[in-house]
Amino acid sequence: MTVERWAVIVAGGAGTRFGAPKQFVELVGRPVLSWSVEVARAACHGVVVVLPTDQLNTAAAWNADAAVTGGPTRSASVRCGLEAVPMSAGVIVVHDAARPFAGRELWETTIQAVDDGADGAIPGVEVSDTIRQRQPDGLWRTLERGRLIAVQTPQAFRADVLRRAHLEGGDATDDAALVEAIGGRIVVVPGSPSNLKLTSPSDLVAARALAEWMSVR
Amino acid sequence: MTVERWAVIVAGGAGTRFGAPKQFVELVGRPVLSWSVEVARAACHGVVVVLPTDQLNTAAAWNADAAVTGGPTRSASVRCGLEAVPMSAGVIVVHDAARPFAGRELWETTIQAVDDGADGAIPGVEVSDTIRQRQPDGLWRTLERGRLIAVQTPQAFRADVLRRAHLEGGDATDDAALVEAIGGRIVVVPGSPSNLKLTSPSDLVAARALAEWMSVR
Repeated sequence: MTVERWAVIVAGGAGTRFGAPKQFVELVGRPVLSWSVEVARAACHGVVVVLPTDQLNTAAAWNADAAVTGGPTRSASVRCGLEAVPMSAGVIVVHDAARPFAGRELWETTIQAVDDGADGAIPGVEVSDTIRQRQPDGLWRTLERGRLIAVQTPQAFRADVLRRAHLEGGDATDDAALVEAIGGRIVVVPGSPSNLKLTSPSDLVAARALAEWMSVR
Repeated sequence: MTVERWAVIVAGGAGTRFGAPKQFVELVGRPVLSWSVEVARAACHGVVVVLPTDQLNTAAAWNADAAVTGGPTRSASVRCGLEAVPMSAGVIVVHDAARPFAGRELWETTIQAVDDGADGAIPGVEVSDTIRQRQPDGLWRTLERGRLIAVQTPQAFRADVLRRAHLEGGDATDDAALVEAIGGRIVVVPGSPSNLKLTSPSDLVAARALAEWMSVR
């Protein structure tokens, strides 16, 4: 019997750095969020979208099984989404709507790693920039780049482990960190360089070009 | 009297991850490298370009004061460039040709910080991805994102300090790390989110769109 897979797509952000809720802006004919919903529907049995509190759109409008409103932090928003995922789900995939280009293959790869026994699986890519870390003394130290990865979504988890990690109510920039905090084992799978995260308005310009480029390849 | 400023633009890479030397591909009518040379000419008294060993182009072809061939690593290439900078230079700015969108203002900001007394000044931006670091035990640990910055170029330095840092012959992903290794004081100035680094072929697609977007603003 196939394990039931559900997706939680987090689109609850206010777009503070972006200037507007970026998940709803148009990207080659459809909203940014729709890109993720389409892939999630193909890879999972059910899809929950987490929307900002002022969004009146229904689940049907987004082609999702459920639409809930988010919380004050990213982790709180994921928890809102988890409440709408049925207890029959065995694997839950959490994805940021700000990454419209995560492909079906990447979703399947992370899910497969959980099917193979990991508590969670996250995509990681090489870091192309030099990264500096502020030290307790206030100085910046350069980190060895070969030991760093940039983490993307989708991130797949055993449903019971993810729910337990969120019971604590903590906050982190991704769910894998919460799962590790309760002792869960996370594996890193190869991410995709084109799995762009829309952060600044110039990212949207880049994303539109990428979307057209990908559609003609 | 104004301190003499020189630029070293590093374009010596083979483009291993990119598939070709990315510094010469066309970006809205001119090669990627030309974008950086133009800004460097406006901000500095002299410009040295560091080219791959198989490049037969002359300094004149690139509108530079000198063109030299690079070395086997990025730091070695910078050293090749430094040899072509006259000893009269008081400030040397090192820039990666893979960042064609670094603007005049960013160049001036880094130079100003050195004029104001720093040994070196580097642009830093917020990190938008979750970053993980491999630990000695092989596990990945999530780093606190608020304490991280992604470092860009141009990086400006006191000429004597930069030359001394490179005398040791070490290798690092940027020059600031070498300067710090000899005790130099580096300051971080605000970088620019649109100061994209061309790493993968999809970056070039994004860059072309950004270039056109910036030209119509």
